[in-house]
Amino acid sequence: MTTTAQAGGSWVEGSDASGFGIENLPYGVFSRPGELPRVGVAIGAYVLDLAGLASAGLIDDRRWFASGSLNAFMVAGRAAWDACRARLTVLLADGADAELRERTRAHLVPLGEAELLRPFEVADYVDFYSSEHHATNVGRMFRPGGQALQPNWKRLPVAYHGRAGTVYPSGTPIVRPCGQRRPSEPGGEPTFGPSLRLDGEVEVGFVAGVPSAPGRGVPTGAFRDHVFGFVLVNDWSARDLQTWEAQPLGPFLAKSFATSISPWVVPVAALEAARTAPPRQDPEPMPYLRCDEPWGLDLTLELLINGQVASRPPFASMYWTSPQQLAHATVNGAPLRTGDLFASGTVSGPERGQRGCLLELSWNGEEPVVLPDGAKRLFLEDGDTVTIRATAPGTAGGTISLGEVTGTIHPAQHP
Amino acid sequence: MTTTAQAGGSWVEGSDASGFGIENLPYGVFSRPGELPRVGVAIGAYVLDLAGLASAGLIDDRRWFASGSLNAFMVAGRAAWDACRARLTVLLADGADAELRERTRAHLVPLGEAELLRPFEVADYVDFYSSEHHATNVGRMFRPGGQALQPNWKRLPVAYHGRAGTVYPSGTPIVRPCGQRRPSEPGGEPTFGPSLRLDGEVEVGFVAGVPSAPGRGVPTGAFRDHVFGFVLVNDWSARDLQTWEAQPLGPFLAKSFATSISPWVVPVAALEAARTAPPRQDPEPMPYLRCDEPWGLDLTLELLINGQVASRPPFASMYWTSPQQLAHATVNGAPLRTGDLFASGTVSGPERGQRGCLLELSWNGEEPVVLPDGAKRLFLEDGDTVTIRATAPGTAGGTISLGEVTGTIHPAQHP
Repeated sequence: MTTTAQAGGSWVEGSDASGFGIENLPYGVFSRPGELPRVGVAIGAYVLDLAGLASAGLIDDRRWFASGSLNAFMVAGRAAWDACRARLTVLLADGADAELRERTRAHLVPLGEAELLRPFEVADYVDFYSSEHHATNVGRMFRPGGQALQPNWKRLPVAYHGRAGTVYPSGTPIVRPCGQRRPSEPGGEPTFGPSLRLDGEVEVGFVAGVPSAPGRGVPTGAFRDHVFGFVLVNDWSARDLQTWEAQPLGPFLAKSFATSISPWVVPVAALEAARTAPPRQDPEPMPYLRCDEPWGLDLTLELLINGQVASRPPFASMYWTSPQQLAHATVNGAPLRTGDLFASGTVSGPERGQRGCLLELSWNGEEPVVLPDGAKRLFLEDGDTVTIRATAPGTAGGTISLGEVTGTIHPAQHP
Repeated sequence: MTTTAQAGGSWVEGSDASGFGIENLPYGVFSRPGELPRVGVAIGAYVLDLAGLASAGLIDDRRWFASGSLNAFMVAGRAAWDACRARLTVLLADGADAELRERTRAHLVPLGEAELLRPFEVADYVDFYSSEHHATNVGRMFRPGGQALQPNWKRLPVAYHGRAGTVYPSGTPIVRPCGQRRPSEPGGEPTFGPSLRLDGEVEVGFVAGVPSAPGRGVPTGAFRDHVFGFVLVNDWSARDLQTWEAQPLGPFLAKSFATSISPWVVPVAALEAARTAPPRQDPEPMPYLRCDEPWGLDLTLELLINGQVASRPPFASMYWTSPQQLAHATVNGAPLRTGDLFASGTVSGPERGQRGCLLELSWNGEEPVVLPDGAKRLFLEDGDTVTIRATAPGTAGGTISLGEVTGTIHPAQHP
């Protein structure tokens, strides 16, 4: 099917240069007024209705697509994913025969008529901490004079479990959380109220489709057999809650109020051309973390605040790769479930303009970030809209888009 | 209905003195060979088949009971829970009329014929750290010379999210996890292999039935409107993995391999007589953590290793109560979902014989615990069976049992 795509683009008008061309074909869930949610694929300015295609006998379907989530299709496995992608490529390619083309066209829904929903039901949600630049910056801020990276950091991909029940689709309003805020000085009294240091974090996540058996890990070489695709993630964070609550068991309320994900799940197969060598790992990882293939991903990310680019974090700079994260998370025998979401941790590069959150951009609230339009921010204000978007090289030499995840800060409700 | 129970016991033979008398009536899910799982209630040495009772028209049912989980009934809410409990009390009371009694008896299944399953589907799993004695012991072990309790500990109930997908029913074999084990000295190399410091933790959990709206917390006074009941929890822990991985984001693989819960969910209403004043809280908690009613619970817990009592942790000594934990976990606007499980953290009392895990009992592996039969343990060995059981005062002056949660350690599987 890659051959088909390389031979040309798609007959869908404007799709080739849209980032949602035939090289991409990400899956999502959409609804139209008065209709039940169903699975679709983005192509140009349209959603291709897979439930409709299946009803018309144009694609194979085993009750995968007339569903409000991708989970049924995600559990079907790599052979089903590959076959569906190959078939969609045939239907959408420039070379498709005229009758097939017209029958397919009948199931294109303009994006403007579709509401994009959360694409899958999240089982467990794990958040890593895999950017060396991010972890180093945080270490320098919070442990001045100490080692920037803790001794375990280059030995294993540090992670924690987050709250699956508050993973929301892009566009969900983000209500500023209340909680106990750190004392202004050591030994002082905490205060209660709306977070005064609200932040977002640029992350990339992958979602498991095929479960794994309890007691058996998922080796790095089996990544493609279990993982369905990638989404963009905004790991909203209340820094004043976090620094107060997180000892000794890690972040809790500072993160659990909301995590946003992008509507389109980009298949692993669409990211083949984005794969690149990750940074050299020294010391050499333990055997269970070694990976024969390069699994860095050359994604170009952007963090926007009110439409202004605040930074451009380079995902290829991530120290730990996705297969290493998955191998680590399962090496203790914990099984995967369909819908398990694994986020990368904040993506930050070595330059100031590559930092993936306001905590780093404003250096813990000390130096305002100046946006291109002159606006300044230490942390997020009510009304601010935060958007993360990303592109990657496509398999046929074009560019594919991972779409965007966005959210607007609403004032605190409590008490 | 309490009046009915106080007037006497149940006609079910032997139930009054069993801990599973008419004052208790905990819910679970069971199956018999060749039959689908369904909801039942423990009474004496029987499970009362609620799906059967409903089919016979003896209790109200809205597709709550012919199910492999309690979730459908849990979401029905307090009025439904109270009505069901009242009706079961009528059916099972000594004074029940003869015809009703015989029609009910037809749905008693001997426990020996029933396999008890995981009682509910876990949505998110949160683990607290609410025993002052436990937190103090851990602080003394790992921060000698420092403050035993960290500054946030008496201000908020510290907690983290655990892995919902590895919450297993009692009796599930516990395979010793592999992972990176802490270096033997600071700056040394970690090693990979089976955990050498495997532990269990005596905990008590509560499970949410009725969801809450995003953005609105669950005040302490609304606890009964959302929480369905209590279970026993063993929070299995690999200490050598934990001390290495947990900085700065908390425990991950050291806990995520397995958490076991007891099969019977004891309704909140059954624990009315167990409610007691919790320890005095100083400093006074913030308003959102204040509670008008006493919510300490006088549960008598036992930790057994291979049938030998290793300790008797007193749950009434917990510093933070269940309604405070729930109010805290939702004060940031995170909504509750049906099946959200909140565990207390290790329960430890002030005496050595009241410590709820081997980490404390052996003082970080330095002083062997000597069991009544002379066996010694620093941590768990392959083949060890760990059981947690508990009783509480019943509403009619008797004793109710929370049953038990048990698990046997199997050797590591991984290379």
